[in-house]
Amino acid sequence: MTQSITIQKLLDEFERLPGIGPKSAQRIVYWLLNNSDTDARRLADAIVDVKEHVHFCKRCFNYSEAELCPICANLERDTSIICVVSEPRDVTAIERTGEFNGAYHVLGGAISPIDGIGPDQLTISALLARLVDTSVTEVLLATNPNVEGETTAVYLARLIKPLGIKTSRLASGLPVGGDLEFADSVTLARAIESRREL
Amino acid sequence: MTQSITIQKLLDEFERLPGIGPKSAQRIVYWLLNNSDTDARRLADAIVDVKEHVHFCKRCFNYSEAELCPICANLERDTSIICVVSEPRDVTAIERTGEFNGAYHVLGGAISPIDGIGPDQLTISALLARLVDTSVTEVLLATNPNVEGETTAVYLARLIKPLGIKTSRLASGLPVGGDLEFADSVTLARAIESRREL
Repeated sequence: MTQSITIQKLLDEFERLPGIGPKSAQRIVYWLLNNSDTDARRLADAIVDVKEHVHFCKRCFNYSEAELCPICANLERDTSIICVVSEPRDVTAIERTGEFNGAYHVLGGAISPIDGIGPDQLTISALLARLVDTSVTEVLLATNPNVEGETTAVYLARLIKPLGIKTSRLASGLPVGGDLEFADSVTLARAIESRREL
Repeated sequence: MTQSITIQKLLDEFERLPGIGPKSAQRIVYWLLNNSDTDARRLADAIVDVKEHVHFCKRCFNYSEAELCPICANLERDTSIICVVSEPRDVTAIERTGEFNGAYHVLGGAISPIDGIGPDQLTISALLARLVDTSVTEVLLATNPNVEGETTAVYLARLIKPLGIKTSRLASGLPVGGDLEFADSVTLARAIESRREL
């Protein structure tokens, strides 16, 4: 053992994060050791704060500090169209395009029998409850363009169409089998623009 | 503003770390949000712990929790040879080879007039004080093979040789497993210059 135990522990913690290998972890830890206590403290506090203060938005299930997330609380958003996504990070990706001014609904995953995720594990009943509001005219099903995402979109379309609400899907242009999270904004914007009805 | 302020703050903190861009930061933050409070807490605590408990080893100036780092405290290390490096991370790199069983001395940088770093900003006087111990027979100058590292090595050699202590330098040459074709000419010239007999 030639490494300080405290340093090794921090290295281990960083290596558990996604996308961080041993070399990146080492670089970060030495950077923290080299920098001021305040810098490190700010990072540590921000981590604790996020876990303490961030919960799910009561309406759309995006991450939020308040009861309603900033998007749901924004009265200038067009609540007649709801964009349904799997994860909060997908909201961020779509917001980045600047192409969408409606409301969101975060499912918290996608239907995946292999992973034991059925419709009941998702926020689908909450979504249907929102659709009782007759002002909603369109639901854009923006789940990922992979098997689970498509399955979820088809499932939701079958539930929503009978309510007399238009359902649409992000257009192709997204690489099939890919992740919405990693799409570039231009491609994603194009896909929103040419969404097709299901 | 469509992002929670707390999340944005954590994103900002992660993006300040070396090698972490906006996408990596986002991936990590969503990973933390998705995982248990305990996981996040452990990371935050490890960061604070490192800054609180890790200081410089009194003898070699490597990072350490105790007065002496694990290497200096290890009685099985050969203290007759001291390997001089610029930064604590260089100790880790050399330890990883398993080729060196001596002691270390961390300078805390390299002589660099452009950055205003002279010999006085480094732990050189502490190194000389260690050499008073007559059991030291060799100093391996393992500063980086760049301008600052070479300058520092030459400077130290001039101070140490008169004490009757052997000074050596890491060999320069082609990286093992590398391609001659892709070696830069300076490295190649050095490799020719210090060719060894077979």
